[in-house]
Amino acid sequence: MRPQGQEEFDGHTAYDNVLTGELDSGPGSGPSPDTDSQGQGVPKDPLLFIQLNELLGWPQVLEWRETGRWVLFEEKLEVGGGRWSAPHVPTLALPSLQKLRSLLAEGLVLLDCPAQSLLELVEQVTRVESLSPELRGQLQSLLLQRPQHLIRTTGTRPCRGSAHPRESSHDEEAPLKEQRQNALRHKLPPGAEAGAVLAGELGFLAQPLGAFVRLRDPVVLGSLTEVPLPSRFFCLLLGPPTLGRSYHEMGRAMAVLLSDPQFQWSVRRASNLHDLLAALDAFLEEVTVLPPGRWDPTSRIPPPKCLPSPHKRLPLQTQEVKDSSAPRRARAEDRHGHPQHTPSPELQRTGRLFGGLVQDVRRKASWYPSDFLDALHPQCFSAVLYIYLATITNAITFGGLLGEATDGAQGVLESFLGTAVAGAAFCLMAGQPLTILSSTGPVLVFERLLFNFSRDYSLDYLPFRLWVGIWVATFCLVLVATEASVLVRYFTRFTEEGFCALISLIFIYDAVGKMLSLTRAYPIQRPGSPAYGCFCQYPDPGGNESQWTRTKPEDRDGILSMDLIADHRSLQDLGLVNASLLPPPECVRRGGHPRGPSCHTVPDIALFSLLLFLTSFLFAMALKHVKTSRFFPSVVRKVLSDFSSVLAILLGCGLDAFLGLATPKLMVPREFKPTLPGRDWLVSSFGTNPWWLSVAAALPALLLSILIFMDQQITAVILNRAEYRLRKGAGFHLDFFCVALLMLLTSALGLPWYVSATVISLAHMDSLRRESRACAPGEPPSFLGIREQRLTGLVVFILTGISIFLAPILKFIPMPVLYGIFLYMGVAAISSIQFTKRVQLLLMPAKHQPDLLLLRHLLGLVGVRKALEWVFSPQELLWLDELMPEKERSTPEKGLEPECSFSGSESEESELMYQPKAPEINISVN
Amino acid sequence: MRPQGQEEFDGHTAYDNVLTGELDSGPGSGPSPDTDSQGQGVPKDPLLFIQLNELLGWPQVLEWRETGRWVLFEEKLEVGGGRWSAPHVPTLALPSLQKLRSLLAEGLVLLDCPAQSLLELVEQVTRVESLSPELRGQLQSLLLQRPQHLIRTTGTRPCRGSAHPRESSHDEEAPLKEQRQNALRHKLPPGAEAGAVLAGELGFLAQPLGAFVRLRDPVVLGSLTEVPLPSRFFCLLLGPPTLGRSYHEMGRAMAVLLSDPQFQWSVRRASNLHDLLAALDAFLEEVTVLPPGRWDPTSRIPPPKCLPSPHKRLPLQTQEVKDSSAPRRARAEDRHGHPQHTPSPELQRTGRLFGGLVQDVRRKASWYPSDFLDALHPQCFSAVLYIYLATITNAITFGGLLGEATDGAQGVLESFLGTAVAGAAFCLMAGQPLTILSSTGPVLVFERLLFNFSRDYSLDYLPFRLWVGIWVATFCLVLVATEASVLVRYFTRFTEEGFCALISLIFIYDAVGKMLSLTRAYPIQRPGSPAYGCFCQYPDPGGNESQWTRTKPEDRDGILSMDLIADHRSLQDLGLVNASLLPPPECVRRGGHPRGPSCHTVPDIALFSLLLFLTSFLFAMALKHVKTSRFFPSVVRKVLSDFSSVLAILLGCGLDAFLGLATPKLMVPREFKPTLPGRDWLVSSFGTNPWWLSVAAALPALLLSILIFMDQQITAVILNRAEYRLRKGAGFHLDFFCVALLMLLTSALGLPWYVSATVISLAHMDSLRRESRACAPGEPPSFLGIREQRLTGLVVFILTGISIFLAPILKFIPMPVLYGIFLYMGVAAISSIQFTKRVQLLLMPAKHQPDLLLLRHLLGLVGVRKALEWVFSPQELLWLDELMPEKERSTPEKGLEPECSFSGSESEESELMYQPKAPEINISVN
Repeated sequence: MRPQGQEEFDGHTAYDNVLTGELDSGPGSGPSPDTDSQGQGVPKDPLLFIQLNELLGWPQVLEWRETGRWVLFEEKLEVGGGRWSAPHVPTLALPSLQKLRSLLAEGLVLLDCPAQSLLELVEQVTRVESLSPELRGQLQSLLLQRPQHLIRTTGTRPCRGSAHPRESSHDEEAPLKEQRQNALRHKLPPGAEAGAVLAGELGFLAQPLGAFVRLRDPVVLGSLTEVPLPSRFFCLLLGPPTLGRSYHEMGRAMAVLLSDPQFQWSVRRASNLHDLLAALDAFLEEVTVLPPGRWDPTSRIPPPKCLPSPHKRLPLQTQEVKDSSAPRRARAEDRHGHPQHTPSPELQRTGRLFGGLVQDVRRKASWYPSDFLDALHPQCFSAVLYIYLATITNAITFGGLLGEATDGAQGVLESFLGTAVAGAAFCLMAGQPLTILSSTGPVLVFERLLFNFSRDYSLDYLPFRLWVGIWVATFCLVLVATEASVLVRYFTRFTEEGFCALISLIFIYDAVGKMLSLTRAYPIQRPGSPAYGCFCQYPDPGGNESQWTRTKPEDRDGILSMDLIADHRSLQDLGLVNASLLPPPECVRRGGHPRGPSCHTVPDIALFSLLLFLTSFLFAMALKHVKTSRFFPSVVRKVLSDFSSVLAILLGCGLDAFLGLATPKLMVPREFKPTLPGRDWLVSSFGTNPWWLSVAAALPALLLSILIFMDQQITAVILNRAEYRLRKGAGFHLDFFCVALLMLLTSALGLPWYVSATVISLAHMDSLRRESRACAPGEPPSFLGIREQRLTGLVVFILTGISIFLAPILKFIPMPVLYGIFLYMGVAAISSIQFTKRVQLLLMPAKHQPDLLLLRHLLGLVGVRKALEWVFSPQELLWLDELMPEKERSTPEKGLEPECSFSGSESEESELMYQPKAPEINISVN
Repeated sequence: MRPQGQEEFDGHTAYDNVLTGELDSGPGSGPSPDTDSQGQGVPKDPLLFIQLNELLGWPQVLEWRETGRWVLFEEKLEVGGGRWSAPHVPTLALPSLQKLRSLLAEGLVLLDCPAQSLLELVEQVTRVESLSPELRGQLQSLLLQRPQHLIRTTGTRPCRGSAHPRESSHDEEAPLKEQRQNALRHKLPPGAEAGAVLAGELGFLAQPLGAFVRLRDPVVLGSLTEVPLPSRFFCLLLGPPTLGRSYHEMGRAMAVLLSDPQFQWSVRRASNLHDLLAALDAFLEEVTVLPPGRWDPTSRIPPPKCLPSPHKRLPLQTQEVKDSSAPRRARAEDRHGHPQHTPSPELQRTGRLFGGLVQDVRRKASWYPSDFLDALHPQCFSAVLYIYLATITNAITFGGLLGEATDGAQGVLESFLGTAVAGAAFCLMAGQPLTILSSTGPVLVFERLLFNFSRDYSLDYLPFRLWVGIWVATFCLVLVATEASVLVRYFTRFTEEGFCALISLIFIYDAVGKMLSLTRAYPIQRPGSPAYGCFCQYPDPGGNESQWTRTKPEDRDGILSMDLIADHRSLQDLGLVNASLLPPPECVRRGGHPRGPSCHTVPDIALFSLLLFLTSFLFAMALKHVKTSRFFPSVVRKVLSDFSSVLAILLGCGLDAFLGLATPKLMVPREFKPTLPGRDWLVSSFGTNPWWLSVAAALPALLLSILIFMDQQITAVILNRAEYRLRKGAGFHLDFFCVALLMLLTSALGLPWYVSATVISLAHMDSLRRESRACAPGEPPSFLGIREQRLTGLVVFILTGISIFLAPILKFIPMPVLYGIFLYMGVAAISSIQFTKRVQLLLMPAKHQPDLLLLRHLLGLVGVRKALEWVFSPQELLWLDELMPEKERSTPEKGLEPECSFSGSESEESELMYQPKAPEINISVN
């Protein structure tokens, strides 16, 4: 294994001229993940940084200035703005390419030049017959002049050029300090080389001077390039002043050519001028042409999300190398192929009882030590913090709702305890330890229905629930034994989305319903309603002195205004001596009885609850969208968006504390004991229930088993998708086995039931992404994999367990805030599914619809998926079921060929010829 | 003058091969606007619709199918989707262009072919030596086959092709029904011609067959093209099957060539093959090239907002025509040049007293009849409706706020009356009759300060205000006499935005402040506060029978619950016979006195007001943003966005009526008389004020005069910007004169003061835009001008006057809703100004900043504009002061050269060579 810091430089797919299946490492390929992403026999060409130095100031004061640079995309110096432009796709004019070609054909081409310094190089380049000795001297001193760079050093302000820009620097071959500090340097992988293009108009030249040099050994050419990289290529394009800016454009054309991987590949191997020109012609064959009247050449095209596959553009010489990797490729293709024919190893039926479980245990056991060693990375700390906060948010929300739904049979404390115990156990035992358990969604709904049922029939809830749990565990073990998990192969996107939509709608319905029930509990007082009458009556009607008058005046001042005292006197004047206008709680405290129609109404609570509900919902939604906004650095946006629920809860609590109204709050027990008074931690096996109820519990248990199977397996399928590049394999059977065992445990202890939670588990995986750190400007970082380990989850749940002692703080959380978060969860989930996005397309006029591939092919947007099978062919339905290729462009690439380019040999492949790229149908499992 | 419907076809800048200054008609060019936008001697080439018919199905069942079409941009047939793609910039492969060139060079080129039908044409085209007679017959029958079109007829579903697609149609030269009903036909201007490209692979051909035909007289070629236009060009590209789809690509290349204006121009005038090939080579010289590795050729580029100027790409033959228009051009350039040297005629100082006013009156008088005739267009009806609703919204909002600010010295009724009278008078008299007056912004603030002052010093407000008004009118007349309006030349964007930001901040501060004062008036009841005590005491302490017990039981039932009666009894039991727990209003009605600390507090009002405030604000903001969303057709979006304030007020009223709480409502008088009780409509000249106050009023009047001058002139400058292409000229002096007179009138009648309102006037102009109706797919409609007339404004204000009788309805509008709208107005105004947008750029990481030209040149974002003059040159500051060119791309184009392309003769013009395009500096007047 290589050192930690090194691995981020591996995934440069865009730089790669490596052709072999670097992405072959699938879940089934065993524990040697670090070796197969490189070194397949073909040496990888180093990355090339290209810089254009332009000769400016003719005829007054000549100076070289860096005006453009290229790694993948072009960055121009905004001379007026004194900064670099955003990276963009370079656009060229065809004539400048042709002029460049003829200049190279006539000029000097030195391949494998042995020069060891800039001085030697300049001497070699200027050894042209057409130059007089005097001119040669002038040219040499000009070429040795130090160029002006706009360098943004790490952490400091940009510094323009060097301190002595005009000074000739024969002896200054060493790179400058600001070159070494250049922030760009850290973006380039080790081993990168530089290419310098020098272009400009020079009055004393009689005819154009072109030179192309490939150095035999790359060498740092002093301060020629802004980054002190060893230079491999050097190109000089000078000539007498002409109309227009043709040398600038030729210089750009040369730089763009050098930044093209295939041209670079050819020119590194070129042995003469002919090869060089052939590479240029090959480049011209493949360019995309935009017509002049329909495109403004000065507008800049932002980098595309997906670059064309380099495999499509290979020179013939390497075709054999590609073919030699065909067997490897075929193997990988099997894994991604139609699972109904050759399912992935995790989902192959063994035919033996518990065969899948045994296989899972065997597979995961080999990874077990690395599951702890792999966690030794600083990234895991932030993952723990993030997932911990998300977990306790979930525990609070669901615990609060469960407590309310079951009239306190369970509560926040049970939720914390259950989450900690079940989560930690799952992390230690499960097949996919990145999964986070939660008592979310359908299970919560089922539990509420079960509670309502047992209340309606006066059953003892917890013992009844225990038997349901025992039966569910039994059914689940049967499902494990019969390897039912292999059925997930038949889950399509339609199945997943239907289930997800159902859960989301339940969330939304629940949140709104609870909020409305709150407004019924605290009615709004309309004008004319008898809202004002409430007085405090004392129990002693005979005595002339009420308790009120016996209290000392000092006591009263804190509670009552002078106004109230005056009114009390007026009441007494009226002969009402044993009554006062004390507020009801104070009245009760002093032994009186509040009397009157408005004693039980609390004003402002309903509307304030509504405000809290809306505020927390809208705030969480807004924070979630901060992630895709263009403001703030990405770190800030990520934090705000990741902690949207936590921040929304904090805002709600702050607002509530600020106004200090008596809104309904989260119920938190004062000490560590079950929420239901009088019960032990261990649920009694029958309680007051008849014995036959333990048998009858099998019926609801059957329903719940189906629910849990669906919920658990859909999450597992999503988490184990091939696009996440998990190396250690899935464990569908083992995961489900763990869920069954935990079912038993939580039922016995009267804790909530747990299954895998999709969203939070995905967030867990997302916080553990490994990405390539060094990216060329304009290139998104490429995804390398996920830190698969058991430690982060374990720590999160240990922390959750400790947080039980934080419970007293939780009693300040108003319930409407939790309803708002609940609504937010539902809305966020429903708007994330493809179904919703496709419904939205229906509301969009055709001309505004994004250019999605599914729209190019089949406008079948919604409707019952099954019904479509009667109408359309499986190939057509592929466009409905499959992950949208556009979506994949932004998410990690899949294992095989990057999906984003279709087999386009001609410039634009017509859809008439389109064939689906793999035989997989109706499956979004991989 | 041409008929109404015709004029929309004029502005096709992108179609134009017309070179002369079609946009020269400026405000100063006199009343002949309809003649100079065309017919400058050079006949305009007709628009060309190009269609690609592809031969599909080889070798089984051959059929022609339309797979692409071009007007400006490319639309592809999505074969899988059964629909047309969105228009996009066509991209070509360079080899297909080269192959096309050699095919044309070897093939048949018929220029000025005299064929009169498809049959004749096919016979001519197939008269090639290389074809055997048998092959010729096969080919002819194939070419006469009716092609399949995907036609979307107006109002019906798309119909695919014809009923008998396989039938040879020698006798069916007449276009089909669906061709005539093609919705696309109405998009193309009259006189448009068609070009048909037929391409495909044909197995029985031994060698490629290329033919290019220019018909002498364009003729409808049956069902060859989907729109039954007369065809001018016909191109046939057939050949034996090859690898790839080269004939498809060559067909596309031919179609793209034909859609290029310059190629089209050349090929219409070509006299031989050489000319044709030269045109193709000229096209190649100008193409933009994208490197293969950095751009996925299958991705589609959406149409750019701005096309390159056709003037840049002229063939040499027409250069003289261009030069001959140079004098016209120079004259126009004067108008747009530096106003400090040659200001536009409206702003030239005459040097005589009232000289500017006299000039304005003379200029406008010549247009006066047309100011009413030009209003005869259906568009004016919708403009009236829109502006009427916006005007009464403003009248209600500002009237309500003014009534509150002046303790009822003025109110909604005065606001309606004043708006109607002042607005109508202005529309009849003013120089810019599209201006809508409003009592907005700084004047409102000033009026409040004035009222507070007069209240503090116990002055009689309205007479004091009368004298201020008299002085203001005097000062303003002095400013008119001295032609002070020419000073607007010195207004820069910085002046305008500073003023606008100030007003917006006052709006926001006011709205939030008023909302907070509302929560103080209706305090929220916290727990423990003495909120419950209130009883009803009757004035007769001696009598044993209170009024209460004397009322009949039937009366009570309607008001009181049984609970309350029970409590009343318990009060009586306690010996309190002359008190009850009636709600305060009821208590007062029955002659009692509410007693107790909570009698004056109304619960829920504060929070509900806050809810209304936030709801109306957020709803209006959301509706405003609907305009730029991608959902719904543009008509729906425009209505929702235009009526956002009205809809938000309606929503607020609906919510308020639904809950029925006693929120503070808009105060509306019951009859038509001044809001202040006891005053006459005519304000008395002194009232109770001392005589010297009429002189002292000159001091505040001076301040107000400056305020009004700034406010009025900034709006006038914005409304008369050159980009709106007003033909009838501005009238700065006349407008200001009218404002002065109205000042006098409104002061005398005690009505609000009025100045021009920017936003609503711009909305008025926007609703009267004339746009080209026929647009090629992908091309935004081009802006032709504005229907300048006096009638829409006049009708709006007459309707406003009539609406005074609608006043009783207005009393249902809650004040918090108006505050919310007020906040929305402020936030919308402040977010529309450049200053805010540039501040936002500061919050954006550089890589997310949009590629604005100002960022390419100068990153001077904010700061005090004046201070920058010490640091930067005027050229640099141009980028700060000037309208952003990007902004102009989306707004109507300016008079002269389209600003969006800079003098780029080479493919990409470097910023090093950039020179500001006009000498104007620091002026955003034009």
